Parts: sequence; structure tokens; C-alpha cells
Amino acid sequence: MRQAIALSRESLFLTTPNPRVACLIVREGKLLASGVTQRAGQAHAEVMALRDASQQGLDVAGATFYVTLEPCNHHGRTPPCVDALLSARPARVVVAMQDPNPLVAGKGLARLRAAGIQVETGVCAEEALAVNPGFIARMTRGTPWVWLKTAASLDGHTALHNGASKWITSSAARQDGQHWRARSCVVLTGIGTVLADDPQLNVRDIATPRQPVRAVIDSQLRISPTARMLDGEPVWVFTTRNDPDKAARLAERNAQVIVLPAHNHRVHLPALMQWLGQHDINEVHVEAGPILNGALLQAGCADALLVYLAPLLLGDARPMFDLPALKSLGDAHAFEFTDMARVGADLRVCAQNKENWQALLAAVQPRPSV
Amino acid sequence: MRQAIALSRESLFLTTPNPRVACLIVREGKLLASGVTQRAGQAHAEVMALRDASQQGLDVAGATFYVTLEPCNHHGRTPPCVDALLSARPARVVVAMQDPNPLVAGKGLARLRAAGIQVETGVCAEEALAVNPGFIARMTRGTPWVWLKTAASLDGHTALHNGASKWITSSAARQDGQHWRARSCVVLTGIGTVLADDPQLNVRDIATPRQPVRAVIDSQLRISPTARMLDGEPVWVFTTRNDPDKAARLAERNAQVIVLPAHNHRVHLPALMQWLGQHDINEVHVEAGPILNGALLQAGCADALLVYLAPLLLGDARPMFDLPALKSLGDAHAFEFTDMARVGADLRVCAQNKENWQALLAAVQPRPSV
Repeated sequence: MRQAIALSRESLFLTTPNPRVACLIVREGKLLASGVTQRAGQAHAEVMALRDASQQGLDVAGATFYVTLEPCNHHGRTPPCVDALLSARPARVVVAMQDPNPLVAGKGLARLRAAGIQVETGVCAEEALAVNPGFIARMTRGTPWVWLKTAASLDGHTALHNGASKWITSSAARQDGQHWRARSCVVLTGIGTVLADDPQLNVRDIATPRQPVRAVIDSQLRISPTARMLDGEPVWVFTTRNDPDKAARLAERNAQVIVLPAHNHRVHLPALMQWLGQHDINEVHVEAGPILNGALLQAGCADALLVYLAPLLLGDARPMFDLPALKSLGDAHAFEFTDMARVGADLRVCAQNKENWQALLAAVQPRPSV
Repeated sequence: MRQAIALSRESLFLTTPNPRVACLIVREGKLLASGVTQRAGQAHAEVMALRDASQQGLDVAGATFYVTLEPCNHHGRTPPCVDALLSARPARVVVAMQDPNPLVAGKGLARLRAAGIQVETGVCAEEALAVNPGFIARMTRGTPWVWLKTAASLDGHTALHNGASKWITSSAARQDGQHWRARSCVVLTGIGTVLADDPQLNVRDIATPRQPVRAVIDSQLRISPTARMLDGEPVWVFTTRNDPDKAARLAERNAQVIVLPAHNHRVHLPALMQWLGQHDINEVHVEAGPILNGALLQAGCADALLVYLAPLLLGDARPMFDLPALKSLGDAHAFEFTDMARVGADLRVCAQNKENWQALLAAVQPRPSV
């Protein structure tokens, strides 16, 4: 299964809004064939693996199939994978995660079992979930999995008080950050960052088969039609201000203005997350300043942190996250570290909200009733 | 040599003020005998290795000796190791670091060469230096190697504004910190920490053959004779205030008051470091608040950082280091990361001042004139 999960990571930049899934076909410990899910509308992992077997002229009846997600049992843009599996007549299907998609939700596994196939689920579920937190979050709670990315000095500062921030981290760290943009469905920033830095927010310097949607939270619709992030691919501008003239000018630049409910004169962040979930967004990669980062944390809309730390001390300077003073350590925003690595001269640290993660994990693991 | 360096780490808590040194005796790739430097005044690594060989009844003439530091050539509390080596008649001596001690400084190696022994130096010098930065710093520049230890949230805060800091990091991280206390010669804090937290600052929860000296910078001599850090072993109180009465009261509690020059009404930190160097202190482990930490950084008296990071965000709270705002990123205090590890739920990050490290490294590597 670990081999299947590693293979599924090859489609990390590709399959959205579908999950990244891999399928291995094994007989007596020998790998016969494999496949990974393709672009949306194209073949899923199980079908790709069966094609691989068929191209080799192999009969896979009686083999074991390892799949990182429960095979689908419904007609979406492609026919149900369970049908393909049933015709291949495996002896055993091992699944990492059950699909919490209400259209699937154990029904795929039930059909396999009904056909006399031995089924095991929950094998390496946590590792498989790490490849698909966004899809599982959207299926489970209707909103995407949200990463906050930030680059700071070791003492937790992202810029000097005069705004100087280029560059705190190394070019290696900035290039590494491109991989995390590429795996997301949306790269989201705040209007403060757009006005201050005029970023492009596209994926560059690395190969990717698709660009994520770029989006900005711009409560008062202040973005200039000449902003660099409006070059190229379509952009979403989330605002509270209904201004059809400005929206029309932005539409000429491929930007879609989306008016959302306000909360304290700003875009209501939970409403934004609902909207993103409804628009098939699995993972959101936030590259914003301390104010938006802090607001997302306070609204409970931050699932994970991606922090690059440079070996510098800046002293009195701007914070990573603009959050109010606490009265008790028990009120701190609590995460758990999931990964750490050296990237050039810097460190990359990943952390996630433990409760949010456990909720997803529970949703993909076998329930007693199944 | 890597095996010798690993062995030398076994005396990390033991040899001060002497360096931690190991010696391996090898013939045709086979380890015959080994030794590590003992407590000050007891045998050095080379003598311990020869004793080991002799206890096994082995003749080591013609063997290769791996030593992590150049053998001494002077009478200190023990006779010169070079004499012991010469009588053992090795064919070859491989040395990681030359000893920058002006009493040695290549003279040990020169005597070995003069006796027809093949000598190589500078083998794994950087790894060997990491075991002895304090000894090499004291020999090279007359002052100890200074670690600043701090425990903070991922966003760089060591306490809430109301002072709450117990506990940001896990008990595993706090226990790990005891190893770093144990390897130091002095555990140093500021009077602010003593007044606020009344810490003991001794090594506990782990086994150690000796306790470091505990010390406090107390410019106005405010420490109470009932402070917990005065329990037990002798303590150094560094001050600018000559107050024989108070000093006498503290002496009854085993505390020695040392009056040092003032700088802006505080203990002049470079003068403190000189004093520590003159008193055979190799490594200083600082556990202090942001003010003393910041002052040490600004005075150029911080060689390395030992930072425990907890997976928490505290927002608006106290900083790791109290440093003034900068005008340019180029003025940032620049370090290089040397190590990172998971410790319980937390991360441990080590960083060092690159220039200071390179100066020590240059001092232990072969010079063209040798």
C-alpha cells in the first residue's frame, strides 16, 4: 500500500477536483500493473491499472488490487470503477481510505463484498489521507483543506516594520514553495499583499500540467485592473462590495468578482470556504500577510501551516500572524508538527490542526456498521 | 575518525575544562584499543587507549592512532601525551583537529613527525570541532562558546504578555534541554529570570558526573539570599555594584560575587566573557529572558542558538529576543542551521554564527607553515 500511496503522489498536481489515487495489481507478491488517476474526466486509477495489465496481455483474475481510495460506485464524468473491478474478477481488494463522498460511502466496498471478493479497508489510511486532505475535507465538511504558507525569520518575523521582506528565506525555499502552490486548487491572498507586492501568484520554475486558480480577498474591491495577478489565467476576486462597473472592468481582465456576505465589513471567511467547497476546490494555498493569516486562524479556517524559517533574527519586526494577546496558554492556536526538512539554508516546517485532521481520518476509516 | 568522534562524545559531560577527546588504536582495519579523556587531572584519551591495549597484553608498535585532537606536548596536570605516543611507536597518527592552545599549536605533531611517524591532520575537523567548540573558542579567542537556549511557540513567542510561559514546550523538550545544560561549564541566567521564576538551573532528570557552575548577571545585586539557585553547588553572581555587606551575606550561601566593569549601568558583557575565559570556562549555556538574550546578541556574545519550537501560535506575546527594529534585512543577526530534530511534540533547532564557527575551524586546520 505504501508503494501505491507513493505512486498516487505522482498525480499531486493533476487530478483536481478529483482525488489523487493509485492502484496496484499484485499477484503472489509480484507487481503486475499499476495506474494513477488522470485529469478530471479522464480515467481513474483502477481503469488505468487495468489498461496497463491489458496492454501487457495479462489476465488479472484472482489477483490482489491495492487502491488508495475506495473505488467509486457512481456515474460521474466516467463510469463507476467498481464495475471495471468486478469484470476483472480480483480475489482481494485492499483499500487505504473509504470514500466519504455520500455517493460512494462504503457502497463500492459493499458491492465488491457482495460479489464474493475479499475486501480490507483502512490500510495506511493516514498516509493516504495526507495525499488527499482537500478532497476528503470537501466530501466530509463541504469546505476545502486550507494551508497557510509563510516565510519568516527564526524569531517569527515576516518583514521589517518598514516592510522589507525580500528576501528573508533563500531562493531554494521560494522554489520549494512552488510545489505547494502547484498541488493546490486555489492560491489565495489578501488585497493588502496585492497592493504592497503586486505578486503574480502563478506556479513557475517547476513543471506543472495545470495552474491553480488565483484568488484575492478584496472586501472593498480595491484591486487595480493592472494588477499583475490578473495576467493570464482567470482570477477570482472575493468582495463584499457590489460594484457592477468595477466588476465589468475586472471581467475584461479575466477576473470574476464574487460578492460574499460581510462580517465586520470584511468578507465572511466561513462563507468564502463554503463557496470554494461548492466550486470543487479541494486544497487552498494561502500566501498572505499577517492580517489575513490571523483572520483565517481566528475564524477557524486554517487547517495546516507551511512555514519556512530562515536562520536570521530580526528582533522588533512584523509578526507571522496578527492575533490578539491571549490570557491563557490554553487558548493558544494548537497544531501538531507533521514534517520538517532542510531546504537550502532554511527549514521547512509543516503543522496541522489536530482536531480537523482527526475528523477527516475518522471519515475515511471503516465504521462498525460497514 | 567518525568512530573516534562518536566515542569522544561519551565524555561530553565530564572533562571540562579539558577538551573531550577520543583515541582509537587500529591495525589493518581492526580496532585494537580505545580511550577517552577523563576528568581534569586524570588521564587523557591517548593514555587511556594505551592502558586499554596494555591491559589486553597488546603491542601497538606500528599501529595507526586516530585522535580527535592533536596530542599535547606540555606538562599540565598530566605529562605530555606526545611522550606516551612516542614510546608506543605508532607507524601513523591521524588527527582531526590541531590544538590551537599556544602551548601545543602544532608542536605535538612536529615532534611526532621528527620521530619518523607519519602524521595526517584536519580529518573530519568540523565534526570534531562540534564536540569541542568551547575549548577551541577559549584557546583561540580567550572567551567561551556561548549557547542561547530558548523555548518558543512556532510564531516566536516565549511567554504571554501576562508572563504565562509554563509550559509552551513539552516535558520531553524540557528534559532534552537538561543534556545541553550538562555539557556546559556554566549555566547563565539574568536577574530578571531569577526574580520572576526563581529557577534552580541545575542538571536534573538525567545522569551527569558533574554539575555546571550556575551563574546570574545581576548588575544591581538584587538577588535574594533565599533564591533557589543558591541551594547546593557554588554560584557566581556577576554585578557592577560593589556591596561588601551583600556579598558577605551571599557568600554564606556559597555564592561568589564578582564585580565587573559597567556599560550603560549593566555588566559589560564582553568583559564577562573575558572573565569566564580566564576562569577555564569552555561552554556557556544561557537560559534567560528576551532582554539578556537580546543584549548578548547585540554585544556579539552569542555563538549559537538552541531553540525548542512548540506547535502553537501565541499571536501578540513576548518575543524570543529583545532586539531593536532594523532598517535593512542585511543588518539581521545571521546564523546557519546546524541541526534539527523532533523532540516529543516539539522541534529542536540548532543554529550557529557562521563567522565565529569558521574562525574556530580555521584555527584547528593545518596551516601551510606546519
